[in-house]
Formats: sequence, C-alpha cells, structure tokens
Amino acid sequence: MMKKLAVLGCGVVGSGVVELFEKNKNLIQKRSGMELEMAYILDLRDFPDKPYANKIVKDLQVILNDPDVAVVAECMGGVEPAFTFVKSCLEAGKSVATSNKELVASKGDILLQTAKENHCNFFFEASVGGAIPIIRPLHKCLIANEFSAVAGILNGTTNFILNKMITADMDFSSALKLAQEKGYAEKDPTADVDGHDACRKICILSSLAFGKHVYPESVPTKGIREVELKDTKFCGQLGYAIKLIARVQMLENGKILPTVMPMAVEEDNLLSQVNGVYNAVMVRGDGIGKAMFYGRGAGKFPTASAVLGDMIEEVQLSDTIPSQTWENVNSTDFIEDFAKFTAKYYFRTSAADIAVLSEIFGAIDEKTISTDEDELIFVTGNVLNRTELEIAMKFLAQKGIQVLAQYPVLTA
Amino acid sequence: MMKKLAVLGCGVVGSGVVELFEKNKNLIQKRSGMELEMAYILDLRDFPDKPYANKIVKDLQVILNDPDVAVVAECMGGVEPAFTFVKSCLEAGKSVATSNKELVASKGDILLQTAKENHCNFFFEASVGGAIPIIRPLHKCLIANEFSAVAGILNGTTNFILNKMITADMDFSSALKLAQEKGYAEKDPTADVDGHDACRKICILSSLAFGKHVYPESVPTKGIREVELKDTKFCGQLGYAIKLIARVQMLENGKILPTVMPMAVEEDNLLSQVNGVYNAVMVRGDGIGKAMFYGRGAGKFPTASAVLGDMIEEVQLSDTIPSQTWENVNSTDFIEDFAKFTAKYYFRTSAADIAVLSEIFGAIDEKTISTDEDELIFVTGNVLNRTELEIAMKFLAQKGIQVLAQYPVLTA
Repeated sequence: MMKKLAVLGCGVVGSGVVELFEKNKNLIQKRSGMELEMAYILDLRDFPDKPYANKIVKDLQVILNDPDVAVVAECMGGVEPAFTFVKSCLEAGKSVATSNKELVASKGDILLQTAKENHCNFFFEASVGGAIPIIRPLHKCLIANEFSAVAGILNGTTNFILNKMITADMDFSSALKLAQEKGYAEKDPTADVDGHDACRKICILSSLAFGKHVYPESVPTKGIREVELKDTKFCGQLGYAIKLIARVQMLENGKILPTVMPMAVEEDNLLSQVNGVYNAVMVRGDGIGKAMFYGRGAGKFPTASAVLGDMIEEVQLSDTIPSQTWENVNSTDFIEDFAKFTAKYYFRTSAADIAVLSEIFGAIDEKTISTDEDELIFVTGNVLNRTELEIAMKFLAQKGIQVLAQYPVLTA
Repeated sequence: MMKKLAVLGCGVVGSGVVELFEKNKNLIQKRSGMELEMAYILDLRDFPDKPYANKIVKDLQVILNDPDVAVVAECMGGVEPAFTFVKSCLEAGKSVATSNKELVASKGDILLQTAKENHCNFFFEASVGGAIPIIRPLHKCLIANEFSAVAGILNGTTNFILNKMITADMDFSSALKLAQEKGYAEKDPTADVDGHDACRKICILSSLAFGKHVYPESVPTKGIREVELKDTKFCGQLGYAIKLIARVQMLENGKILPTVMPMAVEEDNLLSQVNGVYNAVMVRGDGIGKAMFYGRGAGKFPTASAVLGDMIEEVQLSDTIPSQTWENVNSTDFIEDFAKFTAKYYFRTSAADIAVLSEIFGAIDEKTISTDEDELIFVTGNVLNRTELEIAMKFLAQKGIQVLAQYPVLTA
C-alpha cells in the first residue's frame, strides 16, 4: 500500500526533505520495504519553476483530510503557527517529524503528550545536531544506561567563530563578520552568539536523557561575545581549546544541572578537536562509559537527512515509542541551582605571586604563562563551586589582583 | 504483560547483560513502558555464588519452549554452536540480539533470512564498535542517504598498540606485550593484530550499507605487525597518524571496495585523534556529508549496553525491520578488485633525488624529511592505483632507491 508523506514549509530544510527524498526514492523504498510518495508541501508561496510545484497546497486541511498521509514533516521554524499546525496533525493521528528546536524546547512536553493520546509520534531527530544521529541512539541504543552527563558543541556558528579565532588569529568581530559572509551566521547573530540556540538543544537532550521537560529559562546561558583572542591563544598553549559547551550533568543528589557557556576543553577530550561548523555530542552513561556523535549541525541536506530518517521510521510504526518521551513535572525542583556548578578554572589575571594563588586555588598547574604585558595565565589546582569561586574573586580583589578572563575547564 | 529475556552464554558479555539489566531494571522498564524479566541464562557451567544462579539452564529447549521469552541474547562467540542455537531461536519466532561479529560476518545473510521468514529480528548492534551506536543509526537515522564510504578504527587492541608506539616510544613488540598485560590483547593476538577482527566488522558495515553480504574472504586485509616505530614518528611529523583503518568505498562504477590496512590518516580527519582502546566509525553519505560515531569498542558493560538496546527495542516490535537486512547475491561481482584501490602514499625510502621522485609521484609534498640514517620520507603528490604503484616501485628499484615503508593516506 502506498503511504503518503507531507511537508509543512518549503524553505531551506523543507525543500531539502523533498529533494533528498526524490533523489533517493528507490533506495529508500527498497530499504524500508514500502511504497512512498511525497504528496503535499504546505506553503503560502508558489514555486512554479520547481519540479514539485504541483504538490504545493495552501490549506493544512488538505493534508489532515487525506487518510493516506501517514507522517508530516514540520520545517517552518518558530513556535507559531508551527505549534498549532503540529498539534492539529497529531490530533488527526498523523505523526510529525520536526527540525524545529524552538518548538521542541518550548512545547515538547505538550506535543509528546498529544502524540501519545493519539497513538502516533512526535519525532525531532533533526532538532539537535542536524545530520547527527543523536536522539534515536540516546533513547534506543543506550536505553539500558543511566546517564551521568551529556555535553556538546551544539552550535556550528559559534564553533566556526571560535575556531577562526584559534587558527586564523581573527578577533571575535572579524570572525563573526566572516561567518556572516559565508552564510554561517545570520544578520542578527544573537540566537547563535549569545547561546540561545545551544540552550534550546541542551534542553531537548536534557529532557530526553532524564525524562522531565527542561525549559530554556532554567538553563544558565552565556555566549561567546566576550571571548578574547588572547585567551584562545593562551588556552591553546596550556593544552585547552575554548568551545561553547552545552552540557547537562546528573549530580550526586539526583538533581540535574544544565548549562551553556564557553569552557576550556582539555585537548584529550575529543570535543576539543571538533572544528569549523561541525557539531558533536558526548554522552556519558554507566554502561557505555562515554560515546561521541559528530557531524554537520545544520544545512539543507544534513537536516533533511535527519527529518527523512524520522519520517520513514514513523511510517513503519503502529504506536507511540515510549522511550522517546518526557513529562512536564510542573516544577524545576529536579534542576540544581547554578551555585552548585563545580569546575577547575582557567584564569588570566594581572601579575600575581604564584604562592598567593596556590593558597587560594590549590597548587596551580605547573604550566603557567607570564606575558609581556605582565599578565599571568594559569589553571586552578582545585575544583571550585560558584560560592568558592566568588570568595576567591574577592580575595584576589583584596590582594589587588585583577581578573581579566576566566573559563571553567571541561576535562577529558 | 511480563516479557521474558534470555541470554546464551554467561561469559564476560553475557554476565554483563544480566548485571546491567538488573542494575537499571527500573529505569529500563519506565523508559520502555514494559514489564521485563531476565528469565534464563544458558551455560554449561554453574554459578552458585552469583545472584543469578537460579536462572542458569543447560538446555536450549527450556528457552525455546517458553512462549513468554520474547528475545534472546547470544553472547557465546564463535560460529558453532552459536549459529545452530541462534537459528533455532529464530525458527521458534524468538528474536536474537548478538555481540558475535564472527557469526554475523559469516552467517548474517542466512540468519537475517531466517528471521524474516519467522517475522522476528536478528539484531547485532554489539557486533561492531561495542558500545557505539552504529548499526541502528546507519539503517534508521541515515536511511535516506546513499552512502559513499564507511571508514573506521574498529579494533581497540591495535589502536592501543599503535597509540603507544606514537606516544610512548614503544616498538610493536613492547606495545603488544603491554596490551597483553593490561588485558587488551589475547595471548594469541592474531585475530586483532593481523586485522581479522576489523575485517569481520567492516564486512558487517559493508553488508548493511550496501545491501549485499560481504564475506571476510573478499576483503584484502593487512594487520599492523610490520609497522615500525620510526614510521609512526615520521608520519606524525608530516601531519599524519598511522591507524589500522577498515574501510569500504563505493566507486564510480557502482562496485564497492572493502579493505583493512594500516593507513596514514591526515590530522584534519577526526579518526586520527581517536586514541587508546577507543573505536570510531566515519560514515559518508549524500545527505549528511560525513558523520562520526565514537566510543568503547569492547568491554563487558559497553558491549552489554548495546545488546540490551537491541533486546529492549525488539520486545516492542511485531515484525522484521526491513532496513536492517541484506541479501546473499551468490556472487562477488559487486566487489571491486583491489587493483583499483587508489590513494596518495606515505613513503620511507633510501636517499633519493627529489626531482626523480617528483617525476614518478608528481610534485611530492613540500614537507619531506631527510634522516640522519640517510633515509627520505615523503608523501606522493599523485593519487596512485595499485598498478601505478607497482610501476613506480619498479622504477624506484631501477634507480637503486629502496622502499623501506609505504602506507596509503586517508585524507580528511
């Protein structure tokens, strides 16, 4: 029996879904053992010159009313009208695969519940890490693991910028400008540069790994605007790479702590080697130890590949997959306060006595750098929580030592 | 309804499956929405001191005759009696999840067919890359991709040895001895060191990616016994790392070319950064570009994690998954001859005139090394097929230039 597919939104990703499907249709049908047809594309615009011009429809009802449509891809972006449209599809018993991280991070709990009530699925492999298979591996392949942490480079724009600072000696503004010229950054780069995009993605991964919806407002989020070129250099000399790391940890008290911030990543951690616009996600669990997933975090066909993977699996399913779901617990009690965040720290300070620093921070790393400009760069020996960090900062101020830069360290 | 699980073989992996399941049973049941029980462990031995002593059975019929057993894990290793036992399970309509790469590489086609005929599944996530989710991502998440290549570090023992040669200045024999002391290598290390283990794994990945069973006999396989310490050093100086690479490429003529051999991996290729006993698989497809999967390639709980992921998915399925299958085409016509293998090459030769070498190999890389021992190290400018390589070797011989080492290059 022929099954029909539909796509909402014929922008970059939506057109990619249609084009990749048509290109590999025979292969997909052979592998899946099904006859499939790309039947409808919902968009307000017309695309008279495209081979799929005759599939364009203007009214969602056409899709909802066709009983042969088994699954719908949502590639519109933004919360509305995407949310209303997706909810309508699920209520009509049609599964949805989305690439829209904003939608999943803000409305995932509701849409997963709607899917469950209607015995269909709300899939979102494309919403985190673009092409990288991470959602399905996490909830299926790794279902037997208790997770202790998920940490990733989840935004290609900021990774490109930081990488250019490290390798091409460009400061933040020049690297951002280059990213914009290359089409890797938007004209208004806020969502990427200030960490909001990475924040939405770590919300999704946190919710999936720990079973409770984590909203963006619960995640302490800091972007990369203030990263200085000289710190990318000094970090490198000490054996670290500055990366925008979105992370969630399971703490010993059973609470989770999600964060987004630039961190100094040890070079033995493979995340430090993820360059350019690539993304990567490191997962830690009690069965696997650690595993990493790496690939293109965005782009027309990489994202389309993930959406199609979801759509084709969905056509074969007859009910909701329980493992790919989470609940809204109407509370943030399961999320730890940022004050409990602990790490070693990379510091750049004004000239200081190493004996004094060792008193505050424990034996500081044997590798310290003294610069021509009378600055001192070092990594703390001790792991500090935020309160200890604040006390240390006050102590430094009393001693007349200025803190010029400071990054938490992500170890291997 | 309670579903029962069974395990064949209570060795390292089998006991790991039982222990990891019992440790995380509540979590697994919550995530999967099912009541599950580890009911039987088939082994000839008794384990009176283990908490699972009462689950040990000696006769496969006990498992076959219990209609509540939904899925069986095969963790015995070797082809027989594993093959006979697995076939019996599948014929009884019970799905099987295996960690046994030898079984999959030599009998996968038959067992997949048997599973299909009995509307159940033969799963093998644990047979390649241990903990690393690769099988399910490849056939589900990436189902919309036409693959052009899969390349991986699929054997932790050889990766550990090569890594020690590079970082700890040990020669092959000393590094092998250390691996044996640490329990990473067997007393008889042949299967690892000579590439047979990696060969079985690339057979499985090739079969899955391209849909036709590839047997180990069809894969040109070379291990790492002849890798000399000095070449790991010189390679490093030129920006490469020597790794045992198991790879399959789709060529322009539509044939595939699987190989296992030590290659000089460019440092921009993330595979060059995979160290210690870790494994990684790089997949190239027309949708995704490239993606990499990284993690522990072996070990009790990492492998158990993969087996359990398979088992739990299987309990939820009602029929065979078509995408995770391949056929036996009773021919090797789809596999290209090794003569068509092309690459740039790393060379270590006796002293030679660079102008002469450039004539043979195209402008040789600007970075060449001349050693105190009057040896010359360089990377060819041209890509050579095996015939061209042979001609070049003859020409070098005529000129009195000795070839001391030679590795194909894996580019980024």
